[in-house]
Amino acid sequence: MEHLKKYLVEFIGAFFLVFTVGLTSFAPVALPAYKVAIGFVLMVMVYAGGFISGGHYNPAVSLAAAVRGALDWVQVIPYWVAQILGGAAAAGLVLYLVGAPEGTAGCPFGLAALIIGEFLFTYALCYVVLLTATSKATEGNSYYGLAIGSTVMVGAFVAGGVLCFGAFNPAVAFSLWMLKSACLGSILITIATNLVAGILAALTFKLVVKED
Amino acid sequence: MEHLKKYLVEFIGAFFLVFTVGLTSFAPVALPAYKVAIGFVLMVMVYAGGFISGGHYNPAVSLAAAVRGALDWVQVIPYWVAQILGGAAAAGLVLYLVGAPEGTAGCPFGLAALIIGEFLFTYALCYVVLLTATSKATEGNSYYGLAIGSTVMVGAFVAGGVLCFGAFNPAVAFSLWMLKSACLGSILITIATNLVAGILAALTFKLVVKED
Amino acid sequence: MEHLKKYLVEFIGAFFLVFTVGLTSFAPVALPAYKVAIGFVLMVMVYAGGFISGGHYNPAVSLAAAVRGALDWVQVIPYWVAQILGGAAAAGLVLYLVGAPEGTAGCPFGLAALIIGEFLFTYALCYVVLLTATSKATEGNSYYGLAIGSTVMVGAFVAGGVLCFGAFNPAVAFSLWMLKSACLGSILITIATNLVAGILAALTFKLVVKED
Amino acid sequence: MEHLKKYLVEFIGAFFLVFTVGLTSFAPVALPAYKVAIGFVLMVMVYAGGFISGGHYNPAVSLAAAVRGALDWVQVIPYWVAQILGGAAAAGLVLYLVGAPEGTAGCPFGLAALIIGEFLFTYALCYVVLLTATSKATEGNSYYGLAIGSTVMVGAFVAGGVLCFGAFNPAVAFSLWMLKSACLGSILITIATNLVAGILAALTFKLVVKED
Repeated sequence: MEHLKKYLVEFIGAFFLVFTVGLTSFAPVALPAYKVAIGFVLMVMVYAGGFISGGHYNPAVSLAAAVRGALDWVQVIPYWVAQILGGAAAAGLVLYLVGAPEGTAGCPFGLAALIIGEFLFTYALCYVVLLTATSKATEGNSYYGLAIGSTVMVGAFVAGGVLCFGAFNPAVAFSLWMLKSACLGSILITIATNLVAGILAALTFKLVVKED
Repeated sequence: MEHLKKYLVEFIGAFFLVFTVGLTSFAPVALPAYKVAIGFVLMVMVYAGGFISGGHYNPAVSLAAAVRGALDWVQVIPYWVAQILGGAAAAGLVLYLVGAPEGTAGCPFGLAALIIGEFLFTYALCYVVLLTATSKATEGNSYYGLAIGSTVMVGAFVAGGVLCFGAFNPAVAFSLWMLKSACLGSILITIATNLVAGILAALTFKLVVKED
Repeated sequence: MEHLKKYLVEFIGAFFLVFTVGLTSFAPVALPAYKVAIGFVLMVMVYAGGFISGGHYNPAVSLAAAVRGALDWVQVIPYWVAQILGGAAAAGLVLYLVGAPEGTAGCPFGLAALIIGEFLFTYALCYVVLLTATSKATEGNSYYGLAIGSTVMVGAFVAGGVLCFGAFNPAVAFSLWMLKSACLGSILITIATNLVAGILAALTFKLVVKED
Repeated sequence: MEHLKKYLVEFIGAFFLVFTVGLTSFAPVALPAYKVAIGFVLMVMVYAGGFISGGHYNPAVSLAAAVRGALDWVQVIPYWVAQILGGAAAAGLVLYLVGAPEGTAGCPFGLAALIIGEFLFTYALCYVVLLTATSKATEGNSYYGLAIGSTVMVGAFVAGGVLCFGAFNPAVAFSLWMLKSACLGSILITIATNLVAGILAALTFKLVVKED
């Protein structure tokens, strides 16, 4: 039962994250405001649910937390399911509200740029999550949500739409495919890159932080 | 007397929130900056008055707080009165400064979009308020105002003006009617949706947080 | 000697605040970014110097602090001098960098709008300063600078350039006169309004907060 | 070995700071969003690595920390090396992604404006770092990263591109030369100005803060 509460919180957070990504991806112009909204909705949900579930809302973050030892390995799959279902529900609602786009989604980014962009900011995101929200030296701080959400905002400004989709999150990537914002091949590369970045960030954490 | 202090703080906070909403709703272009201003004025007032009155400035939040057990039921109506009077005073001042618009306010949003938009972000707002400002596990944190104000900013970016008015607050909705920014039917639906969302957020809080 | 340290900190903070206001008031377009910069430079200086001098950088805030009992009355004039000198030094440097504008500054705002705009946001600023940075109930919080700087940012978005100059600060108002951004009559009204607003905010603080 | 961890954290932070600066300096329009990104990526890295290395990512900050007594003098050169290597790696990756610009970089700023702009905001940055992140009176606060990143954001808005490059950081200045965004003479003046500003900020800190 305690675990179901965590899955519900992960579902809610992933829902609002993807609802924000989804509605803004259909906006006529990619105003900076929309990227602020994506970063800040993540911040808000991290602050709201962090003390219950950890506030991941991202399969790559949950994987990084497991590698670092902050999440039981047996919880990884249920967390992923809750995150993907939350994102899929939001994507479905966005499609109901704005209608499915016609045609087929393209693969607008070069392979190297896509991998570099998704890798770097997913790595930064997981590095920031582990250092600000799971290390004993900074326990009880009030900045972890601001740092985590801002990392995604920066990634969205710098890399999103330029080098890559700016998902930095397999659940978001999956929902972009549902929304026909990206072709399947690009999405699969994005998801694999996100997960690898999460693992490497967790190994970096273990290297730079000494804990018992 | 102690209670009168709380009502005064709620009046002041609702006044500045609606004054900001009101002046910016007459601005020639809905710049992102105006939505930032709305979120941040709420943040500021939550930080200023939170330790006195709870910093609601929103009848839906006060209702959610009562359902959750963070506000005495007997205080709900006086809080609502203070919030609505604060908002109405601000709307009156805006009308004095910019002049009442001619003609009749329209009902620009579809019923489903209006209800979905107002429901989702009022639900998110009350969920965030209860989890960051009323749960024992996060007592004494310094982020609650940032999280609460940012939720409204995100809602204003994502849903406000697209799906719905972006009130997320019955006192704001009432003032938009005073400012002839919305027709009465839409306002009544907005208010009812806001209150239902507050109740459901409080029930969600009770589901995911174990206290006592 | 201890007092000289405080005056130096007030000088530095007022210098950077007015340098930011001054350079951005000569920018070709009043981008929202410039108003963000003004709010955030105040936030930064409040966080840096708050624990030394209180981080006022504003004669109206120092007056409000004295009325509330957070600043010795004998310190008010030296604080004002440090703040005005800091602002004047910055205004002088701005004039050196961009050159003095030709002609005479106008009085672009109506009297009622000027007074209402300057009053409301100076009142909000002093109310927020006293509640977040001088009340025992919130001692040790990490949000006071964010709340204080954001109040000025919101005022700049909502009222600055629309109803009034958006000074909310006699030292800033004086520097706007040096920069020929405003006529003397408007500046004097702004300064008087700022000081009255500070006194009323301090009285409100005494009304809503019970201490000792 | 403990020291190697610090150098790695400094390398990572400087990498992401310069990667953000570099990609955004090639963007077609210098949108305000890019300056927000630069300030916020610094904030994020300060929060992530501050408790390990101090989170400098800037040779001028490391020099200021040494003068103030918060960093062993023997660590200054290794910190500088890590910061410059991190920045150079990011600049190299940016060149790989967007291609080296043709022609020779110009020296677009006047000497006085360049020195004043780089001096003032590097001074403000080091003053803010020392007061918010190294003074005992504010130990354990949650705002230091927000204050530090925001100082750079404000400097980028106010001075960057108007008076100077807006580096405020010798490692960033060096990478701008790699990216052919600035001529060598301007870069050398920028670096010298940054270091002098750091020293003066540390002396100011010693003047206004009394510690054992």
